[in-house]
Amino acid sequence: MEKDIRFRLAEEKDLDKIVEMLADDVLGSRRERYEQPLPVSYLKAFRAITSDANNELVVAYQGDEIIGVQQITFTPYLTHQGGWRATIEGVRTASSSRSKGVGTELIKWAIKRAEKLGCHLVQLTTDKERPDALRFYEKLGFKATHEGLKLKL
Amino acid sequence: MEKDIRFRLAEEKDLDKIVEMLADDVLGSRRERYEQPLPVSYLKAFRAITSDANNELVVAYQGDEIIGVQQITFTPYLTHQGGWRATIEGVRTASSSRSKGVGTELIKWAIKRAEKLGCHLVQLTTDKERPDALRFYEKLGFKATHEGLKLKL
Repeated sequence: MEKDIRFRLAEEKDLDKIVEMLADDVLGSRRERYEQPLPVSYLKAFRAITSDANNELVVAYQGDEIIGVQQITFTPYLTHQGGWRATIEGVRTASSSRSKGVGTELIKWAIKRAEKLGCHLVQLTTDKERPDALRFYEKLGFKATHEGLKLKL
Repeated sequence: MEKDIRFRLAEEKDLDKIVEMLADDVLGSRRERYEQPLPVSYLKAFRAITSDANNELVVAYQGDEIIGVQQITFTPYLTHQGGWRATIEGVRTASSSRSKGVGTELIKWAIKRAEKLGCHLVQLTTDKERPDALRFYEKLGFKATHEGLKLKL
């Protein structure tokens, strides 16, 4: 029987595996650098995320194996009569665990976490080069009501 | 001669005018509540934003008059080899000051602020019901590479 998928906050010892997952992806392979030693920029970002009360880096695992990751950012906004939103970013599943529902479990976990913290909205953007991802999120109830714009500096 | 547009962090005394601007908008009028006294949820959100080192609520003003507002959130991410992004949200211009370039000045100010803080990306989402806003941001250099998805809780 397959072991249950469980979730916890990421620890520094997970960073190598997390970066491996970020890089092992059509778009990620173009922009990440998974090498030994890891570029120090990843460790700096990791520490900034995990030391911020409004950011949670969450890993999914089975037994001893990390099989997925996502970052959830909680942000207070004035719009919609004031309140908190959860933004999901950097969702990845280990290649050995794809098509087994890990992504679905990650997002469902994030939604529950957002509900627990009193958020009124969960949001994310997905690259238009990932049509499968769009369908995946729509199946989970998300509506593509917005354009997501980026400006590189 | 028109007075220069200037910028500063919002203060609690600006909140009434800010909510008025948020509500005075095609989409905002459906979901905001600008009334006296202001719903306390706005004040709670205001205090959460202004007490968070990674959030800046910025007003544009001319003389004594508040003419625009935006929120900038700075977030560390592991993706793109680790680094910080600036997310812009809740951009509004006072109805008396529209079509005078206030929105452009707000966004340019946010971009400069993001550069100064070492962000590698500025991002935002815009409702697909605002085609003019999409063109506005594209003129400023933003690329609509992503779908923006929302899930209401």
